[in-house]
Amino acid sequence: MSISDRSEVTKMIVSAKVRKGLKWAHIATRLGTSKEWATAACLGQMQFSKQQAETAAELFDLDDEACAWLQIVPYKGSLPSAVPTDPLIYRWYEIVSVYGTTIKELIHEEFGDGIMSAIDFSMDIQRQADPKGDRVNVVLSGKFLPYKTY
Amino acid sequence: MSISDRSEVTKMIVSAKVRKGLKWAHIATRLGTSKEWATAACLGQMQFSKQQAETAAELFDLDDEACAWLQIVPYKGSLPSAVPTDPLIYRWYEIVSVYGTTIKELIHEEFGDGIMSAIDFSMDIQRQADPKGDRVNVVLSGKFLPYKTY
Amino acid sequence: MSISDRSEVTKMIVSAKVRKGLKWAHIATRLGTSKEWATAACLGQMQFSKQQAETAAELFDLDDEACAWLQIVPYKGSLPSAVPTDPLIYRWYEIVSVYGTTIKELIHEEFGDGIMSAIDFSMDIQRQADPKGDRVNVVLSGKFLPYKTY
Amino acid sequence: MSISDRSEVTKMIVSAKVRKGLKWAHIATRLGTSKEWATAACLGQMQFSKQQAETAAELFDLDDEACAWLQIVPYKGSLPSAVPTDPLIYRWYEIVSVYGTTIKELIHEEFGDGIMSAIDFSMDIQRQADPKGDRVNVVLSGKFLPYKTY
Amino acid sequence: MSISDRSEVTKMIVSAKVRKGLKWAHIATRLGTSKEWATAACLGQMQFSKQQAETAAELFDLDDEACAWLQIVPYKGSLPSAVPTDPLIYRWYEIVSVYGTTIKELIHEEFGDGIMSAIDFSMDIQRQADPKGDRVNVVLSGKFLPYKTY
Amino acid sequence: MSISDRSEVTKMIVSAKVRKGLKWAHIATRLGTSKEWATAACLGQMQFSKQQAETAAELFDLDDEACAWLQIVPYKGSLPSAVPTDPLIYRWYEIVSVYGTTIKELIHEEFGDGIMSAIDFSMDIQRQADPKGDRVNVVLSGKFLPYKTY
Amino acid sequence: MSISDRSEVTKMIVSAKVRKGLKWAHIATRLGTSKEWATAACLGQMQFSKQQAETAAELFDLDDEACAWLQIVPYKGSLPSAVPTDPLIYRWYEIVSVYGTTIKELIHEEFGDGIMSAIDFSMDIQRQADPKGDRVNVVLSGKFLPYKTY
Amino acid sequence: MSISDRSEVTKMIVSAKVRKGLKWAHIATRLGTSKEWATAACLGQMQFSKQQAETAAELFDLDDEACAWLQIVPYKGSLPSAVPTDPLIYRWYEIVSVYGTTIKELIHEEFGDGIMSAIDFSMDIQRQADPKGDRVNVVLSGKFLPYKTY
Amino acid sequence: MSISDRSEVTKMIVSAKVRKGLKWAHIATRLGTSKEWATAACLGQMQFSKQQAETAAELFDLDDEACAWLQIVPYKGSLPSAVPTDPLIYRWYEIVSVYGTTIKELIHEEFGDGIMSAIDFSMDIQRQADPKGDRVNVVLSGKFLPYKTY
Amino acid sequence: MSISDRSEVTKMIVSAKVRKGLKWAHIATRLGTSKEWATAACLGQMQFSKQQAETAAELFDLDDEACAWLQIVPYKGSLPSAVPTDPLIYRWYEIVSVYGTTIKELIHEEFGDGIMSAIDFSMDIQRQADPKGDRVNVVLSGKFLPYKTY
Repeated sequence: MSISDRSEVTKMIVSAKVRKGLKWAHIATRLGTSKEWATAACLGQMQFSKQQAETAAELFDLDDEACAWLQIVPYKGSLPSAVPTDPLIYRWYEIVSVYGTTIKELIHEEFGDGIMSAIDFSMDIQRQADPKGDRVNVVLSGKFLPYKTY
Repeated sequence: MSISDRSEVTKMIVSAKVRKGLKWAHIATRLGTSKEWATAACLGQMQFSKQQAETAAELFDLDDEACAWLQIVPYKGSLPSAVPTDPLIYRWYEIVSVYGTTIKELIHEEFGDGIMSAIDFSMDIQRQADPKGDRVNVVLSGKFLPYKTY
Repeated sequence: MSISDRSEVTKMIVSAKVRKGLKWAHIATRLGTSKEWATAACLGQMQFSKQQAETAAELFDLDDEACAWLQIVPYKGSLPSAVPTDPLIYRWYEIVSVYGTTIKELIHEEFGDGIMSAIDFSMDIQRQADPKGDRVNVVLSGKFLPYKTY
Repeated sequence: MSISDRSEVTKMIVSAKVRKGLKWAHIATRLGTSKEWATAACLGQMQFSKQQAETAAELFDLDDEACAWLQIVPYKGSLPSAVPTDPLIYRWYEIVSVYGTTIKELIHEEFGDGIMSAIDFSMDIQRQADPKGDRVNVVLSGKFLPYKTY
Repeated sequence: MSISDRSEVTKMIVSAKVRKGLKWAHIATRLGTSKEWATAACLGQMQFSKQQAETAAELFDLDDEACAWLQIVPYKGSLPSAVPTDPLIYRWYEIVSVYGTTIKELIHEEFGDGIMSAIDFSMDIQRQADPKGDRVNVVLSGKFLPYKTY
Repeated sequence: MSISDRSEVTKMIVSAKVRKGLKWAHIATRLGTSKEWATAACLGQMQFSKQQAETAAELFDLDDEACAWLQIVPYKGSLPSAVPTDPLIYRWYEIVSVYGTTIKELIHEEFGDGIMSAIDFSMDIQRQADPKGDRVNVVLSGKFLPYKTY
Repeated sequence: MSISDRSEVTKMIVSAKVRKGLKWAHIATRLGTSKEWATAACLGQMQFSKQQAETAAELFDLDDEACAWLQIVPYKGSLPSAVPTDPLIYRWYEIVSVYGTTIKELIHEEFGDGIMSAIDFSMDIQRQADPKGDRVNVVLSGKFLPYKTY
Repeated sequence: MSISDRSEVTKMIVSAKVRKGLKWAHIATRLGTSKEWATAACLGQMQFSKQQAETAAELFDLDDEACAWLQIVPYKGSLPSAVPTDPLIYRWYEIVSVYGTTIKELIHEEFGDGIMSAIDFSMDIQRQADPKGDRVNVVLSGKFLPYKTY
Repeated sequence: MSISDRSEVTKMIVSAKVRKGLKWAHIATRLGTSKEWATAACLGQMQFSKQQAETAAELFDLDDEACAWLQIVPYKGSLPSAVPTDPLIYRWYEIVSVYGTTIKELIHEEFGDGIMSAIDFSMDIQRQADPKGDRVNVVLSGKFLPYKTY
Repeated sequence: MSISDRSEVTKMIVSAKVRKGLKWAHIATRLGTSKEWATAACLGQMQFSKQQAETAAELFDLDDEACAWLQIVPYKGSLPSAVPTDPLIYRWYEIVSVYGTTIKELIHEEFGDGIMSAIDFSMDIQRQADPKGDRVNVVLSGKFLPYKTY
C-alpha cells in the first residue's frame, strides 16, 4: 500500500530504531548534523535533503517511496494533545506556563518589541555533571525578530 | 478593601513599574537575585523572603498587607489560556510542540527514564551579538530526576 | 485608580474614538503610519514610540499613565475565543481552515521548508471597485524565514 | 473496497504526487486553473468539474470511483485541530488573532457593516524578491457582502 | 464612566425593556423594520442607522454616547458558550447537528458547490395554528453564493 | 466481518450513491418521503421502517445485516466537531450564534416559556428564483412545547 | 443601578434566603408549587407568573424591577462548566455518562425512535428510609415525543 | 487476533443483537437481572459474573476470550463526547444542566452535606400510560452518603 | 452589600488569614478538626457546623451573614481550570494521569467492581524525615463501595 | 508487521493477562517489584530493565521486538481524556479538584515553596478492614523539592 502521510514514515523509523538498537547520537553522526536536528527530523519535524534521506533509508531500511517522503516538508507538531501528558514534556510546558510572561518581559526589556525566532533557531542539550545530582543543560538560540512600524 | 489574591498584588507591582519607569534589571539588583527570578517573582510566580518583600514594598509603594501577600506561595501559572496567543510566548509553546518528543528522546538516551526538573531549575537569558542579526540566547538548567523501581 | 493592563488603555481609546467620532484613516495620518498599523496599535497589539504615544494621548485625551502604557509591549491576541464568533473575522479563520494546507504546500514548493513571517510583516487593505460588487483587496507581505539544518 | 469519504481520494492524490515527483504548478497547468485553486482542490477542499476530474485521474492514476468522488462537493476544512500546530499555518492563525479586530474595523470603516466573502474569493501567492531576504506576497480578494435591514 | 463596548449598551436596552414592559413587536414598529431584525439589533448584533439609533435612544432612555455606539458595527455572536445551554437555543444547535449534513447535501444537489449566505439573509418567525398544538414556523432565506474556479 | 455501528452502513450508502450516481430527490421518491427526511435517514440520523429499509437495501446493494441496522434507532449527530468547519454548515451555526437570542426572545414573546421542538419537526428546502441571484429558502416547522408549573 | 440579567435577581434571592434562613419547602408552599419547580425557578431556571413573582418579591424583599425580571423567561443552564465539578451534581453527570446509552436503548425498545421530553417534564425527590442507610429516591417523568417520517 | 479492550466485546454483542433480532428485555431475563443492569452490562459498563458471562456468550455467540473479558471490570463511560450529541441522551444532560443546582439544594436541605451515590444505585424505566401521550417514567434510587468531619 | 456566593466568604477568610498571619494548624485546633478538613472547609469545600462557623467568624472577623454562609453546603471544586497549572497541584493531576489505570486495576483485583469513596474519605499529610531529602507522606483512606447487580 | 508504539505492546500484555487469567500480584512477584510499579509498567507507564522485560516476555508470550520496546521509555499518561469518565478514576480526579488547594496550602505551610515529587515517588495500596465496610488505604510518598532563589 502507498504512503499518504509523513507520520507513516516516522513510525517505520521509530520501529527500525528499536528493532536495530540504534542510538540518536550515532544516527546524527551518520546524517552529519547535530543530534537535536537529527532526532527532530527522524521524528517527523524536519525536511531531509536528498543525501540525508538516502542515509536515513539505509539506516532504517526504508524503500524509495518512504525516502521520497522524507524530502517533503512535514505538517509539524509532535504532541498528541495541546497540554502534553508525558511528565518530561509537561515540565517544558510548565516552564512556558510559569516563566512565559517573564521571558516576554526580559526579551522586550533588552530588545524592544519582537520575538525570539523558533525557525532561525537551534538547541543544544548536554549533561552537566553536578555533585548534588547531574543536571540537564539546554541552550536555546533564536534570532531576535523585531516588529516594525509601517 | 482587603486583598484576597496574589494577582491583585501583581497588578499593583506592574502598575507601579510602568508609572515609575523601572527596569527589571534594576529591580533584580535591588532584590539581590538574577533578573529571571526577580521578574518571575514580581509577576506572581515566586514566594518572596521577608527582606525581599520589604524591598519590593519600597520599590513599588506597597502597603503592609500587599507585603505580607508577597511572602505567601502563589497559585502559579502566568498565562491566560492553555495555548498562549501572544506571539513571543507562542514561539516557546511551538518549541515544545515541535521539539517536545526530541527533547524527551535525547534526555532519555543520555540519562534513562526520568525528567528535567522545572523546580530545581534556573534560566539565564542573554543577548548574543551576531552580524546577521542579534540572537536571544537562553540557558535552561534543570536537575535530572530519575524514576526508580520500587 | 491605577492602570495594570494595556486593555484598560484600549478601552479608553475605543471609547474616545466613538465619543469623538474619529476615523482610523485620520488617526493613522496623525500617527504617521499606515492605517493598518495604526489601528492594530490602538486596539492594543503594537508598542507606540514616545512621539506616537503623545499624539495618541492628545487624540484620545489620555493621561500620562495611559500614555506610558502605550509605550510598553502589550500581551497580544485580539480575539475573545480561539474560534472567533464574529462573522467578518470568522471568514478569515475559515480561509486559514480551508486554504491552510494549500498555502503551506505552495510556499514550500516555492521556497522550501520555512515560514512566512508574521513579525517582519505588513498588510494593506483596499477597496477594489468591481461592477459586480466592490471587493475587499488585501495584500499580505511577510519575509520568508527558512529552517536550517544545524 | 469502496470509497466512502473524499479524504480517501486526497490520500491517493498526495501519495501519487510524492511517488511521481509532481509539482503543484504543473498540476495547475494541466487542470487549467490557478495554482491556488488546483492545490486546494487536490487537497480535498474544492469540487472538480468532470473534465478536471478526468485530468486529475490521469495525473494521479485514479480509478473511476475516485474520479466520481472528485466531482462531489467535499466536507471542507483542512486542519486537524482548531488551533493549527504547524508553524507555517500557525503564523496565519496568528495574523487573524493579532490583526482580526483591525481588519474588522478597517473594512467596516470603508464599507459599513458586512463581510469580506470567503466564497466569492481568490488568492494569489507570489515570491517577492527583496535584498534583505525574499518575501511571500499574498493577495486576497473577496467580494464585500453588506448586511441589510429587513 | 465611558462606554467601551457595545455589550454595555445592550444591557441598558434589555434593562429598560423590562423596566418599561416594552414588546419587541412594538419596538420593531417604531424602528420601521421586521421584528427579527429589530430584536437582533437591540440584542447587539446589528448596526443601527442614525435615525434608528435616535428612535432607540428615545425608546430606551439612552444618552448620546450610547446612541453613538448603536451606530458602530458590533462584535457579533450572542451566545455565552460554543454549545448553548439554553434549551430553546440548543434545539437550534441540535437541528444543525442532526440535519447539518442533510442541508449540505440538498443545497449542493440543487445548486452545486457554494453556500447559503448568512449575510444576505432574512428570517421570519410566525405562529402556525394547529389543532394538535400550535407550531413555530420559521422561514430562512439566504442568497446562494457559488464557489468559482479561478 | 460483522457490522457494529450504524455509521458503517452510512458509509456503504454514501459509497453506493456516488458509485451509482444517484440523486437524493430520486432516493426520496423511492422511499416515499420528503427529500429532507430521506437524506437525513440515509446519512444515519433516522430509523427506517422495514419497507423503507428494504427499498434502501435494493437501491444501495445492502445485505440483510445492513438492512437490519437501518431499522435500529441510530446514535444521532452528523458533525465531526462541536463547531463545524465546513463553510455551508458553519453558516447555519453562525445563524444560531448571531440570531440565537433573537429567536429565543421572539418565540417567548409569542408563546411564553417553552421551546420549538426539534423532534416534532419538519424542514423544507427550496430554490427561490431571484433576479439578483437565486436564494435558498428553508422552512422549519416545530411544535411549540410549553414549560409547565408543577 | 439597573438589572440587566436574571442572574442578578438569582443572587438577590440566594442572598436573602441565607440571610433569612428560609427553607425551599417553605418557599414552595408559599409559591403553591412543588419544591422542585420552586427551587429551579428561584435559582433562575423558570419563568414566574405575576402572582408567583409578587410572592417571591415579598419573601425575598425584591423591588419592582427584580419582580418584573422574574416574569421574563431566563437564559437557562445552571452550571458553571460543561462537566460539573461539584461532587453531588457530578454523580448525575456520571449517571448520564455510564447509563446514557442504556437509557437510549430501553426507551427506543419500548417506544421506538423519539425522546423523553425535558420540557413536558416533572421531577420528584424524596427520602427513602432504608435500614442500610437512607436513600435518595428521584422520579423523573417526561412525555415521550416520537420522531415522525415526513 | 486477540482482544485487548472490552469495547471490542461490546461491538460483538451489539452486532450479534442486531443480527439475531434480540430484545433487551429477553436478554435481561436470560441474565436474571433487571433490564437496566443487563443493558448497561452488555453495553460495556458493568462486570459480569462467571455465570452471566457464560449466558451472554451463548446468547451472542462469543468465544472463550470474549467471555473472559466480560468478567473484567471495564473502563466506564458510554458516550463519545463530554456533551452528548444524541437528542435522547442530550435531554438527560439538559436535565442535569437545568436542574443540577436544584437537585443539589433539595438533597442538602433534606440530608445535609453529602451526595446521592451513583454506585449504590439502581434505575427503573417504565412506560406510563397517559391520555395526552404516554410518558417515560424513570425512578432513580441512590444511597445518601454524608460527608463527615474528621 | 449582600453575599450571594460562598466564594466571597472564602476570600474574606483567605484575606484575614494573611493579614493576621494565622497558621492552618492553629485554625484546625480551634475548629477541633484535622488540619486537612479545616483547610478544605476554610477554602470553601466543606459545610461548617454552627459552632465551627462561630469559631471561624471569631478567628477571621466575619459578620453574621458570612457566618450563616459557612453553614450552607458550598458548590465544590477548588481549581480554576480542568487541568491545574500550579506545579504542586499539577503533580497530583499527573499522578492520576500516570497511575490512574494502575489504581483502578489494583483496587478491582482486591475488591472487585466498585470505587474508593471520595465522600466517606479522609486524608492525612505528614512530613517524613529522610536523609536524602524529607518527603511528603500522604495517607488517603476511602471506603470501598461495590457496584451491585440489580 | 512491526511495532511502532509502546501502546501496541500494552495491548498485547493486557490481552495475554486476560487470556491467561494472571493476577497483578503474581506478575509483581515475578518482576520482583511492588504491585504498584509492576502494574504501571505493564500498563505502559514505566521502563523495564532488560531482566524485567525478559520476565514479562515469558509471562505474556511477547516476541523479541515487543521485549525491546519494554526497555524504551514510554510516552506517559494512561487516560483517554483530560477529565476521566471512569467512576473509580474520576473519584481521584475529584480528590484533586476538591482538595487541591488544601494539599497545596498544607505542604507549603510545612515545607515552604516547592512541590511533592511525582517522580521520586512511590505508592502503596492496601485493604483496610473495617466493620462499617472495608476501606481502600493508599499511601503516597513523594520527595519534597524546594524552589530556590537564584
